[in-house]
Amino acid sequence: MSPTTAIDGNSSTNKKFKVTVVGSGNWGSVAAKLIGSNTLKLSSFHDEENVKYLPGIKLGRNVVADPDLVNAVKDANMLVFVTPHQFMEGICRRLVGKVRSDAEAISLIKGMEVKMEGPCMISSLISELLGINCCVLMGANIANEIAKEMFSEATVGYREHREVAERWVNLFSTTYFIVSPVQDVEGVELCGTLKNVVALAAGFVDGLDMGNNTKAAIMRIGLREMRVFSKLMFSSVKDNTFFESCGVADLITTCLGGRNRKVAEAFARNGGKRSFDELEAEMLQGQKLQGVSTAKEVYEVLSKRGWQELFPLFTTVHEITIGHLPPSAIVEYSEHTPNFSLVEGSAQYY
Amino acid sequence: MSPTTAIDGNSSTNKKFKVTVVGSGNWGSVAAKLIGSNTLKLSSFHDEENVKYLPGIKLGRNVVADPDLVNAVKDANMLVFVTPHQFMEGICRRLVGKVRSDAEAISLIKGMEVKMEGPCMISSLISELLGINCCVLMGANIANEIAKEMFSEATVGYREHREVAERWVNLFSTTYFIVSPVQDVEGVELCGTLKNVVALAAGFVDGLDMGNNTKAAIMRIGLREMRVFSKLMFSSVKDNTFFESCGVADLITTCLGGRNRKVAEAFARNGGKRSFDELEAEMLQGQKLQGVSTAKEVYEVLSKRGWQELFPLFTTVHEITIGHLPPSAIVEYSEHTPNFSLVEGSAQYY
Repeated sequence: MSPTTAIDGNSSTNKKFKVTVVGSGNWGSVAAKLIGSNTLKLSSFHDEENVKYLPGIKLGRNVVADPDLVNAVKDANMLVFVTPHQFMEGICRRLVGKVRSDAEAISLIKGMEVKMEGPCMISSLISELLGINCCVLMGANIANEIAKEMFSEATVGYREHREVAERWVNLFSTTYFIVSPVQDVEGVELCGTLKNVVALAAGFVDGLDMGNNTKAAIMRIGLREMRVFSKLMFSSVKDNTFFESCGVADLITTCLGGRNRKVAEAFARNGGKRSFDELEAEMLQGQKLQGVSTAKEVYEVLSKRGWQELFPLFTTVHEITIGHLPPSAIVEYSEHTPNFSLVEGSAQYY
Repeated sequence: MSPTTAIDGNSSTNKKFKVTVVGSGNWGSVAAKLIGSNTLKLSSFHDEENVKYLPGIKLGRNVVADPDLVNAVKDANMLVFVTPHQFMEGICRRLVGKVRSDAEAISLIKGMEVKMEGPCMISSLISELLGINCCVLMGANIANEIAKEMFSEATVGYREHREVAERWVNLFSTTYFIVSPVQDVEGVELCGTLKNVVALAAGFVDGLDMGNNTKAAIMRIGLREMRVFSKLMFSSVKDNTFFESCGVADLITTCLGGRNRKVAEAFARNGGKRSFDELEAEMLQGQKLQGVSTAKEVYEVLSKRGWQELFPLFTTVHEITIGHLPPSAIVEYSEHTPNFSLVEGSAQYY
């Protein structure tokens, strides 16, 4: 059962907005807090007093926690999904036929899977199973820092309707949390997953004490591979998306802090002699690193298509994590600068 | 008198290349070392044994140091400039009429000035005074780390002739120093200067202990303002340049380490109560921070054109450095998200 929160509002015209947050964890709580405080302030939402269920963060007075998923979504026309990604397929299957046909969804879930036939986007899963439009919200947003009202940013990716994106922007934005819309669902969503592979590379550099120059170079090469990979997967993906919070800023945050970077640093300091599984168990109390599985999934896509040489960083990260290469291989790019002209129609990516 | 080094070579065809490095300091020494080792290896350059004058780094066997500037350049057809930027006008004036008419130049000098009428590019100064073409080389390259052969990257900006850019790339590239060409002299050169303003902003965030989320957001906003400012100054500037080493990577290095970030952190920790002049004198033994003067120069350009609201980060950094705003103002963007459509023809920058 996934905790949910319902936040009521009515518009100043005749459209009434009711928001339901399907989610849990720190980010779910922080999202409910942001939304709750905005629906109190914005004239298009009315307030309702009620606080229960979600632990920790103090939620808004008008946030109602509801343990019954189907009941929570039935009247909502704005659905916010913020669960671990592995739960989403099950949740969507339970919601088939239970949501309003005019509902709009947004996914805050980072970490969709990259399957052999291509990335399996969470936003597509929601759209396809529930028959509703789905935006995404990604960015450099560590829940605990936003909970403390420290300045940060996020990006809303939308497919077609700018006014829907603007409604999400208004629902999340505060003076300390700046949200910007871009018309590129896939680009925004892929950033949230692929950055974890680059964070492993950054962690190797830290573990080898290679200095800021090298770390910056590796992050830059990683950002380029994120961009080229995304554009090869979806021709609609835009370069500018990678300048947004979901792109360069989330990459920086993740490569400065973050658990992928941290465990990769430990892996390199141990010369690759202790496996990621072992280090994960020791350092993360049984949680798994998304970066390691994403690197494997991306590698499978690349090897199936013969693209390994075009993505030396992605390829090398995977080969380091499985012990085929030493951590120091992360900086051995000398002999294979990628030639993107090999990929049909990709000359413009360079 | 500026130390110079001459590096001889002849091509495998009938063109003979002779390189002269006009410069000094760590970066001058490291550049001479990179070039010296390449001219020994490449068939288009012959080697000559000689080492003297430049202290510290072990230079190549074929690097000749020559204290006579005019003598050093007279036979060279490849001129590398790597002096402090304030010396360049004087050096160029002494070289008028003394360089070969078929010489090609490259500037490694970061920190051109931004004058009221627009940026005063060092590459333009060289081209105009000496009547020769001038490329630039910029990037995340801390001389000491490159001297230790740690992996890093750089960007060559060129104006027209790709084959000239390729010749420079071959002259500098090694297995640990990867150089890529882009056709955008002004974009590459502006990155090297404007990043110092963003580094001050990053330093304020560090001094206020605001966390990685906030720092990443500020760096991203800074990169956006670098990009928009450069494009407004030179319509030829390309977005992709900011994805290169000279853009995002140099920005990351400078905002993680670097003296601008360091002194700005101290400024914020003191609540702005000790001036930059005082902190500079104490922390940098009398060296001046380029970021503070660049922020002032950029502010003058912005205020002359009424563009302050379009560049809240650049504007706020300057106002903090002169004591008109407290360091905490660096994150107070809530009420003035820039609207680039106000600037004629700039809708595409958004």
